[in-house]
Amino acid sequence: MYRSETKVRVHYALTDQMGVVYHGRYAEFMEIGRVESLRQLGFTYKDMEEEGIIMPVTEMQIRFLRPARYDDVVTIVTTLREVPHNHKITFYTEIFNEQGQLLITGHASLYFMDRKTMTRMNIPKAIEEKLIPYFKEEK
Amino acid sequence: MYRSETKVRVHYALTDQMGVVYHGRYAEFMEIGRVESLRQLGFTYKDMEEEGIIMPVTEMQIRFLRPARYDDVVTIVTTLREVPHNHKITFYTEIFNEQGQLLITGHASLYFMDRKTMTRMNIPKAIEEKLIPYFKEEK
Amino acid sequence: MYRSETKVRVHYALTDQMGVVYHGRYAEFMEIGRVESLRQLGFTYKDMEEEGIIMPVTEMQIRFLRPARYDDVVTIVTTLREVPHNHKITFYTEIFNEQGQLLITGHASLYFMDRKTMTRMNIPKAIEEKLIPYFKEEK
Amino acid sequence: MYRSETKVRVHYALTDQMGVVYHGRYAEFMEIGRVESLRQLGFTYKDMEEEGIIMPVTEMQIRFLRPARYDDVVTIVTTLREVPHNHKITFYTEIFNEQGQLLITGHASLYFMDRKTMTRMNIPKAIEEKLIPYFKEEK
Repeated sequence: MYRSETKVRVHYALTDQMGVVYHGRYAEFMEIGRVESLRQLGFTYKDMEEEGIIMPVTEMQIRFLRPARYDDVVTIVTTLREVPHNHKITFYTEIFNEQGQLLITGHASLYFMDRKTMTRMNIPKAIEEKLIPYFKEEK
Repeated sequence: MYRSETKVRVHYALTDQMGVVYHGRYAEFMEIGRVESLRQLGFTYKDMEEEGIIMPVTEMQIRFLRPARYDDVVTIVTTLREVPHNHKITFYTEIFNEQGQLLITGHASLYFMDRKTMTRMNIPKAIEEKLIPYFKEEK
Repeated sequence: MYRSETKVRVHYALTDQMGVVYHGRYAEFMEIGRVESLRQLGFTYKDMEEEGIIMPVTEMQIRFLRPARYDDVVTIVTTLREVPHNHKITFYTEIFNEQGQLLITGHASLYFMDRKTMTRMNIPKAIEEKLIPYFKEEK
Repeated sequence: MYRSETKVRVHYALTDQMGVVYHGRYAEFMEIGRVESLRQLGFTYKDMEEEGIIMPVTEMQIRFLRPARYDDVVTIVTTLREVPHNHKITFYTEIFNEQGQLLITGHASLYFMDRKTMTRMNIPKAIEEKLIPYFKEEK
């Protein structure tokens, strides 16, 4: 399993008139979690895009358990449960508030795609190889 | 089945640098679809909130098939597959572009909640009664 | 003077926990007003971008007088006070609620730019010519 | 003069199809700058709201010089040029990229308001007193 954490403070623009973070904004927290997850592994999504690889989201699911509130510093925990071996990668996300309460669980699947041809491609070898050690330990 | 349609034009702010609508923004289209769905039935979510009923989203799932693009007028089709009889209501959404292509399918479940006590409550009778005729026909 | 109007309904995502539309979202209403203003003149910003002309915003100013609220249908009034003759165009915006109350006044200046070279260019002749008649009458 | 700095990383959701941060999103950066500015002074806007003081934005102006781009870590510099003595406070903002280039300059004026009565109130004494020393030095 590969697991990473990152923290984000909730700014005012993310709230809605229910007095909590608008449910649609959690997709952004999940995105931030995925990108920081790659960065901690040594890759940036920015470089990937510049090298011609894009990663569109193909499926997303979120369960909302408790609301995040204005000015909360939330912890985004992002997990890969398996090494992707083809064009698809699934990130699992849990978000916690400062009291350690679980706010949401969710996942998003993305495809690795060639930006020019807009066709699916396999996970870049460099990423796959970086991930493998995290999964060996557990076997 | 209760089914409603509404149209929205994609403005620039909804796009991202992939040149398509940012995946997280579809939650807003789904919300617009749900609210117009209630309005076509004779209710406004605004009035409900003012009367002390809030409807937080408790679960959401989206499959992204094709991207919506800037300036597209998308058609949001919102469906109830059953009459809710307790505190939970599930709306199904399909979004189509002007060529009739299916862009996303998804659903969101919401709870009816008492705003003051923040406890679950049953679907208001008035809404339930308005919905029943749409489901009788099919039996 | 060239003047156009368009209407937008405020959806939930635009509100913040003050119970009103988040001030930063008015930039989106102003954008919608500008784009519809061009459309009513016979041009779409989408086509312009595809033909290689982009129009980045270079300056924006907004005065907030009254808040827009959830589910309001606001009227966006967009005005050109003069025909642009070089690379710069300034749109003035007023937004009204359903009671006819003025909510904000603002303006945004944009440059016409060549997308490839990223250099300023003059307003396309076709747009300038369409605009001229609106200003002749007033002299 | 009271000056504070904070840093924010640009996530994907903030970009638009021009490949840069959507101009309307800078209002959020400016908000983050103001809030961190208060925090560094020992106050949180969250506490203020809970104590019944809200600070709606009444005017905002931004000049866009260079675009912020995806994954940039931008530095938001927020400045008060004078101690407010009544209900109005004006924050000046400059945002820089990692190369030290100035991206935008802007300002926003806000009112101190009593949340219950929705009337203007003077700046809380505690904030005014904390600010005064920063301005004495310069005289």
